[in-house]
Amino acid sequence: MILKENERIDDLGCKDLKIIQNKNWFCFGIDSVLLVNFSKNIKKSANVLDLGTGTGIIPILLSGKNDFKKAIGVEVQENVAEMSRRSVELNNLENKIEIVCDNIINLKERYKNSKFDVIITNPPYKKGGEGVVNEVEEKLISRHEVKANLEDFIKTASSLLKDKGEFYIVHRPERLVDILSLMREYKIEPKLMQFVCSSYNKPPKLVLIKGVRNANAFLKVEKNLYIYDENGNYTKEIMDIYNN
Amino acid sequence: MILKENERIDDLGCKDLKIIQNKNWFCFGIDSVLLVNFSKNIKKSANVLDLGTGTGIIPILLSGKNDFKKAIGVEVQENVAEMSRRSVELNNLENKIEIVCDNIINLKERYKNSKFDVIITNPPYKKGGEGVVNEVEEKLISRHEVKANLEDFIKTASSLLKDKGEFYIVHRPERLVDILSLMREYKIEPKLMQFVCSSYNKPPKLVLIKGVRNANAFLKVEKNLYIYDENGNYTKEIMDIYNN
Repeated sequence: MILKENERIDDLGCKDLKIIQNKNWFCFGIDSVLLVNFSKNIKKSANVLDLGTGTGIIPILLSGKNDFKKAIGVEVQENVAEMSRRSVELNNLENKIEIVCDNIINLKERYKNSKFDVIITNPPYKKGGEGVVNEVEEKLISRHEVKANLEDFIKTASSLLKDKGEFYIVHRPERLVDILSLMREYKIEPKLMQFVCSSYNKPPKLVLIKGVRNANAFLKVEKNLYIYDENGNYTKEIMDIYNN
Repeated sequence: MILKENERIDDLGCKDLKIIQNKNWFCFGIDSVLLVNFSKNIKKSANVLDLGTGTGIIPILLSGKNDFKKAIGVEVQENVAEMSRRSVELNNLENKIEIVCDNIINLKERYKNSKFDVIITNPPYKKGGEGVVNEVEEKLISRHEVKANLEDFIKTASSLLKDKGEFYIVHRPERLVDILSLMREYKIEPKLMQFVCSSYNKPPKLVLIKGVRNANAFLKVEKNLYIYDENGNYTKEIMDIYNN
């Protein structure tokens, strides 16, 4: 496995899984790890789609935590998709994970004859024109709604989910009204939600949401997930997530 | 002040304010107290409307915590409205608080020439046909969406709020998608949200939401409010709310 310039291999700390990352591009964070944990009870027979896969972290890490039939990770940037494909090979997961380079807004047409059991996404958090500064293009596209916006992600998920199929998303709490309203509009009813806070006395910085296609309205809000305890150490919940 | 059968006078623990309650009807809970606290920074010049005032707890307690110009409490049940009117008199607040007996769905017509600065509501939590058991009618109407549903409350608030007027609601977390979607649909943008939990290791049982008519989309989620600490005593935050 030959690394390209600025690339490194990171150990995922889970069943010897590894991932290639480029230090100048978007590197995965705790949000992807928490999203994979949040979606960990999917069925072994599930066909999974990850919208905006980036490094491929979600399908690769999911393969270590869960069994599933097949996962497709879709990434709009060719060079990022190429890097994530090498991570799939590095883990010998070519039979389980496919990386597709496309804009998610094209998927309804690409998969017009398929429906998925599970769709997962860690989309760009920031609106198109919001706080766009001097960022490397690869990072900009991963973090800002440049190629597709939140509505595109939810609309695409809705059109490709089976009836009662599951949708998992991680995002910022400030976008919660957008997310919940759009999910309902596109018939993915929000069923489970959990906020993630740095510590007990901090407001949430992330929100995890599970929706189900065509489900009845009733939202369960879990107790918060805290990352650090009073002493600045990882909480037991976070240690369990990283060690399982 | 002559009490009727099954009535008692409760001390609100705030500037000698008192309230009359009927032990067989709906008695106010911590949700109303927290909602008043959540809305405590309203302007002195504010005209306030409380949709579904019940015992009158919200305008009466608000008068002790905040200055405002005038508050109208609307209650659909004549006997409950009559009792809350006597509570207003008991506190000599007739110049400040008016109790109106009407169904909130009629208010758009009743107040067609007025707009309010602040609208507050602690509406019935349960859907019309949900878990309706053998309840006294007065309690049933206060707790279930019999006379008006959540959409009626939000639609009415929207039609009676000034541009940039403030809306405050307390409800159950399971209805969060309904609340946020309807608020956005009726142009009351959710701006601030706080969950209330019994204790640190429990999921939320209440949610407090502030919306602003015609505001931009950006939700701030506060850290949770906890009622009891590890030893089962009220937390400092709750003590501060009850003592101020």
